[in-house]
Amino acid sequence: MKQRVSTGLKWISESAGHRLWALDQTLLPHQEVWLESQTPEDMVALIQRLAIRGAPLIGVAAAMAIAKYAETGANTDEILAAARLLRNSRPTAVNLMAAMDRLVLNQAPEKLSKEYLIREAEAIYDEDVALSEAIAQRGAALIQDGDQILTHCNTGGLATVGVGTALGAVIRAHERGKKIHVYVDETRPLLQGARLTTWELAKNGIPYTLISDNMAGFLMSQGKVNRIFTGADRIAANGDSANKIGTYSLAVLAKYHGVPFYIVAPSTTVDKECPSGKQIPIELRKADEVRAGKSPVDCPVWNPAFDVTPMELITGIVLEDRIQAKA
Amino acid sequence: MKQRVSTGLKWISESAGHRLWALDQTLLPHQEVWLESQTPEDMVALIQRLAIRGAPLIGVAAAMAIAKYAETGANTDEILAAARLLRNSRPTAVNLMAAMDRLVLNQAPEKLSKEYLIREAEAIYDEDVALSEAIAQRGAALIQDGDQILTHCNTGGLATVGVGTALGAVIRAHERGKKIHVYVDETRPLLQGARLTTWELAKNGIPYTLISDNMAGFLMSQGKVNRIFTGADRIAANGDSANKIGTYSLAVLAKYHGVPFYIVAPSTTVDKECPSGKQIPIELRKADEVRAGKSPVDCPVWNPAFDVTPMELITGIVLEDRIQAKA
Repeated sequence: MKQRVSTGLKWISESAGHRLWALDQTLLPHQEVWLESQTPEDMVALIQRLAIRGAPLIGVAAAMAIAKYAETGANTDEILAAARLLRNSRPTAVNLMAAMDRLVLNQAPEKLSKEYLIREAEAIYDEDVALSEAIAQRGAALIQDGDQILTHCNTGGLATVGVGTALGAVIRAHERGKKIHVYVDETRPLLQGARLTTWELAKNGIPYTLISDNMAGFLMSQGKVNRIFTGADRIAANGDSANKIGTYSLAVLAKYHGVPFYIVAPSTTVDKECPSGKQIPIELRKADEVRAGKSPVDCPVWNPAFDVTPMELITGIVLEDRIQAKA
Repeated sequence: MKQRVSTGLKWISESAGHRLWALDQTLLPHQEVWLESQTPEDMVALIQRLAIRGAPLIGVAAAMAIAKYAETGANTDEILAAARLLRNSRPTAVNLMAAMDRLVLNQAPEKLSKEYLIREAEAIYDEDVALSEAIAQRGAALIQDGDQILTHCNTGGLATVGVGTALGAVIRAHERGKKIHVYVDETRPLLQGARLTTWELAKNGIPYTLISDNMAGFLMSQGKVNRIFTGADRIAANGDSANKIGTYSLAVLAKYHGVPFYIVAPSTTVDKECPSGKQIPIELRKADEVRAGKSPVDCPVWNPAFDVTPMELITGIVLEDRIQAKA
C-alpha cells in the first residue's frame, strides 16, 4: 500500500480503510499536533481557521476529505453537498475550487463511486507532488550562487503536499549546493513567515533571517535582496496574481529597486475563467486577527487576507512547464 | 505654580520640590500606569525600554530628569555624567542629543546651577508645546475635507509634550471641522500604531481603521489613501529623514501611487551637522521584539528600529516655521 505523507497532510491506508491527518499549522513552530479529519465539515473548519492553509494544500486536503467521506458510506447527494461546502470554504485560492470541480462537481453524478473518488483524490495528491517538484526545479534554476532571496508567507512543504512552490525552489536550489540566504517576511497578521517558513528553513538547514514586513523596503534599499519569490492563490488569465496580503507592496518595492520578482505556482492556481485581477474575490477576515489582543478591543480594522499584484510588476510566473513573462 | 501635564509626561511642582512622572507607553492601551522617575538612571531605563518614546518627548523627558537630579542635590560633575548617559541612551533620535547639548553639554560648567537647570528644562518643555502647536497647525492646513490619511507609528500627544507632530496635524484638522478618516499602520514590531495611535484617535473622536503594515500598498492601489503623514527621528541637512522602520516603504509606495507624502517634525529634529541620511546611525534592537514569542526561539532576526527616507521621496517636511520641499 502506498502511504501518502507530506509535511502537513497524511493519507494513510489501513486494513479498515484510510485515515486522514492534518498538522495543525496554527500551533507551529512550538507544537506539532496532528489532527484526524473524519468528515467534510471538520475539514471545512480546519481550512477556515487556517489549521490547513496554502492554496495547493487546501485543494488536496479537500479532495482527500471527499474520498474519506465516500469510503465511510456517503451517497452521491451527500458527496455533492460536501464538495460544494468545501469549495466555498475560502473564496480566493482557486486550487480548492479546481479540485472540487475536477473530482466531483464537473463529473456525471453516476461516476461518483467510492472507488473513483479515492482513486481520483489520490491522483490529485500525487499530481500536486509532481507539480511542486517541477516548479521547484524550474524555480531553482533561476537562483544563483550567493543569492539573497526575500520571501513572503509560507510556500513550502506546508503549503502543498510536495516540496512547495516558491520555498520549494529555494529548498531545491540549496540542495543543489547553491549558497543562498533567505530573508523571511513575518507576514502579518497570522505570521506564516515567522512561524512556518522559519520552521521549514531551519529543518532544511538553510540560512535565513526573519524581518517584519515593513523592513523589506529598507532591506532592498541597502542592496541586500537580489531576488524575490512568492507563491500565489489565484492567477488570472492575464497574469495578475492574488497572493497573501503584502505581496503587492513587495512587488512595487521590487520594481523601484530593480529586484526581480517571481511568482512560483502550479497551473492548478491559474484561473483561465478569470480575465484579470479585478475579478478575483479577496477574502476579508476577522478584525481580531489584526488586533491580536494588543490594540483597543473594539478597534476598527481592515483585514484583507490577500492582495493582487498586476502582471506588469511580475518578472515571471514560474509554472511547471514554463515561465510566463510579461508581454 | 505652573503645572506641566501632557499626555505622556508630568512635571509637577510641589512645596517640597518637583515630581516627574511618565506614562508607561508599553502598557497602553489596556493599562494607564504612571511611573515616577527619581534619577537619570531610571529615565535612561524608561527611554531604552520605550516606556517613554517619541523623538521630541524623549528630549524633553531627559531635560526634566536632569532638572530633577539637580534639585535633589547633584553636583556639576554628576550633572555632566548624567547628561552624557541620557544623551547616549538611544542613538537615532537627535532631539535627545539636542536637548542634552543645549541644557548641559554646550554650557560652561559654572552655569549649571539648580535654578538654571530647572528654568532651562522648563523652557525646553514649554518650547516643545509651542513647536508642536505650530507644526500641527501648519500640517492641518494641508489637510482637506474628506481626506483619507495614512500614518505610521505614533506622533501624537504621546510623542511630544504638546498635541503632537504628524498626528497633531490630524487632530487640529479634525478640530477645525474637517471630515477626515485615518488609516493607522500597526507598526511592527512594537505596534505603536496599533497600541498608541488608535488610543489617541479614539480619545479625540477621530474615525480610523487599523491595518497591518503590509496592507498599505494594497490600500493605496485601491485609491483609499490621498495623503500620508509621518514624524521623524532625525532629519539630515539635505532633508533625508530617519523615522520608524517602515516609513521608507510607505514613501516608495506613495511615490508609485502618486500620494503626497509629508514628514511633520519640529526643528529640534533637524541635525544640521548631519549632511545626509547616510550619516544617520540606525539603532538595531533585540531579536525578541520581532520574534514576539511566535517564531522559533533562536530564530535569526534583523531588527532596525528606523529607516531613512531620502528627500527625493518626500513631498514636504512640515516644520514650525516653513514647509521644506524638494529642490
